[in-house]
Amino acid sequence: MTDFTWTRSQFDLPEGVVYLDGNSLGPLPRAVPGRMEAAQREWATQLIGGWNEAGWMEMPRRLGDRVGRLIGAEPGHTVIGDTLSIKVFQALAAALRLRPDRRIILSDSGNFPSDLYMAEGLVKLLGCDYELRLVAPEAVEGAITEEVAVTLITEVDYRTGRRHDMARLTAKAHEVGALSIWDLAHSAGAFPIGVTKGGADFAVGCTYKYLNAGPGGPAFIYVAPEHAQVAEPALAGWLGHDAPFAFEQGYRPGKGIERMRVGTPPVLQMAALDAALDVWDGVDLDDLRARSLELEDRFIAKVEASCPGLDLATPRDHAERGSQVSFRHPEGYAIMQALIAEGVVGDFRAPDILRFGITPLYLGEAEIDAAVEVLARILRDALWDREPYRTRKAVT
Amino acid sequence: MTDFTWTRSQFDLPEGVVYLDGNSLGPLPRAVPGRMEAAQREWATQLIGGWNEAGWMEMPRRLGDRVGRLIGAEPGHTVIGDTLSIKVFQALAAALRLRPDRRIILSDSGNFPSDLYMAEGLVKLLGCDYELRLVAPEAVEGAITEEVAVTLITEVDYRTGRRHDMARLTAKAHEVGALSIWDLAHSAGAFPIGVTKGGADFAVGCTYKYLNAGPGGPAFIYVAPEHAQVAEPALAGWLGHDAPFAFEQGYRPGKGIERMRVGTPPVLQMAALDAALDVWDGVDLDDLRARSLELEDRFIAKVEASCPGLDLATPRDHAERGSQVSFRHPEGYAIMQALIAEGVVGDFRAPDILRFGITPLYLGEAEIDAAVEVLARILRDALWDREPYRTRKAVT
Repeated sequence: MTDFTWTRSQFDLPEGVVYLDGNSLGPLPRAVPGRMEAAQREWATQLIGGWNEAGWMEMPRRLGDRVGRLIGAEPGHTVIGDTLSIKVFQALAAALRLRPDRRIILSDSGNFPSDLYMAEGLVKLLGCDYELRLVAPEAVEGAITEEVAVTLITEVDYRTGRRHDMARLTAKAHEVGALSIWDLAHSAGAFPIGVTKGGADFAVGCTYKYLNAGPGGPAFIYVAPEHAQVAEPALAGWLGHDAPFAFEQGYRPGKGIERMRVGTPPVLQMAALDAALDVWDGVDLDDLRARSLELEDRFIAKVEASCPGLDLATPRDHAERGSQVSFRHPEGYAIMQALIAEGVVGDFRAPDILRFGITPLYLGEAEIDAAVEVLARILRDALWDREPYRTRKAVT
Repeated sequence: MTDFTWTRSQFDLPEGVVYLDGNSLGPLPRAVPGRMEAAQREWATQLIGGWNEAGWMEMPRRLGDRVGRLIGAEPGHTVIGDTLSIKVFQALAAALRLRPDRRIILSDSGNFPSDLYMAEGLVKLLGCDYELRLVAPEAVEGAITEEVAVTLITEVDYRTGRRHDMARLTAKAHEVGALSIWDLAHSAGAFPIGVTKGGADFAVGCTYKYLNAGPGGPAFIYVAPEHAQVAEPALAGWLGHDAPFAFEQGYRPGKGIERMRVGTPPVLQMAALDAALDVWDGVDLDDLRARSLELEDRFIAKVEASCPGLDLATPRDHAERGSQVSFRHPEGYAIMQALIAEGVVGDFRAPDILRFGITPLYLGEAEIDAAVEVLARILRDALWDREPYRTRKAVT
């Protein structure tokens, strides 16, 4: 049984703040500063030797396996590096190469824009009639036809929190001979995931949201065992080479997931990630999911009871949601500004979404209740209808 | 006049070590730990707000300008992010797009393998008769013909330290209508560079060598003003979008150098870079170059006087070298292992290169002399001809 009092004690949270934005940037785990200091000591004392002696060179694989456990991957199939956008590009380029006679990347209009932009960039680069086809989230299943080379789906919608059925869509893709790439940005650390069980061909994600690795924490990529040894890396960096330190002139992809490495990995960010993952050693993901749904349901019920004008954007069905709850309101931006000013931190996504991350590692009933109370007061007293909350900035 | 006693006091160097590998990984600047702690405090207290309040979102541009000053770029044309390999890919893809009727990427066999691998990966991705053409370093100028779309040259050879003439090769490229990409991995922080004056179209580099940003420090990319607004980003990530937080479905490249940003930047690594760059505020690059040549010449003269069997691999002509000195020896690997065991840290590059980085920010005559003394003793007493030094590891 996961001890959520213990997990909560592992975070350094500011006094007086209810933090409901861990789905955007997780808070500082208490283990991080010590580990960062240790990494700097390694740098100072071992210098270049740290790559071997301190195990820096192995970190992408070692931490890949730590993340792999959280997404239901067998050891040896997940690696850390780069940013999520780069990992999307890698997965897409490799998947298209595995389906050379097909031209369609299928995604949905609810996908995170950067995934779509990276696909657009790749399609433009490739030319040759490649196409990024977008359909509405609910139309994805029907659009998986034999023309489709690969589906690029983010499991949980970054705005509404609506969750796709990974196993079903993947099965459908395989039925028609297509491959599936899953973006787990809002899934990893949010609930149990079974990339292997679900049959995902590729999965990518970031570590700075539910995994709490800090701003700019590196991304991860998973490649299914059956593709690991045949996937061709389009971003053919030296650390994905079979013998990086032989300095051969020609590229030979490394063994399995190693080939998805590119350049020199960010050791200091990885040290933060390593420390952040310690908390997860004490967490059972089924307990996490149960607790998350309990808190989400409480939040939804209380908001609906006391905050008129807010429309639930997140599906009520447990199976169809992740670990965030979103509401729509035409004045969503101003309301969120007022909330933040009152110490309740969520975020806003255009055009009208108020987003609240429900993260049981460091949130409980008290925070949920306090957040709703403040939200209700802001709406009741129309606090949002004042300067400076109504002033919409171009960039939030 | 640069005060090299002061610069040296800014580094945390281990006792009893002569560190001649700053061309691979710079040592820890004393300002880094405090800055890392501050960045973690920002994370803990400002949480998601740090992206605006702490200026995290602007760091790639702000630090880009700080690096830009060191490579002779005008403000606003350099940005930080990703790894050098990724930046090579970005520059290449953009350059090829600017020369749509040409198919040749020209590079030399002395280029760093990852640059060649990334080019190879891009060529394979593009198909359509694109070609990576490799010639010997001394044959580059003659090979710049009207077929060439872009030259991809690393200014200083990572093994020999031989330096290409940036202005001349760039002029030759322009003469035939080609573009030039310069990899400044072994140049930035090694000597004065004039990317704008030299007419470079693109320049890329890393920050963990002479700039001392720490293991896995992020890379940089410079795009010449005349291309900045027309270069098409192949890696079309959201933070290179003109309005990243509008979450539009289609990609529109950001203004100028902004479009070379891709994903969420590594804030903790950037904090280390920021601190590392402080030292450079007190450094005149002409002083640095003079001091570096002085120490290099001293090192060469002493080695040649007292270390028989070592052949200088670095050109004697000042204009033709960077800030590293390399010697060849058939037993180079074992000799370097013995040197490291004796506290003199350089590195080895296959098949027979002993590499020594001469970095005046923290090295002076005493270290140069001590290094040569140890090297001479190792050779005289054949210390290298013992276990474990002779045991060549697969990965060094």
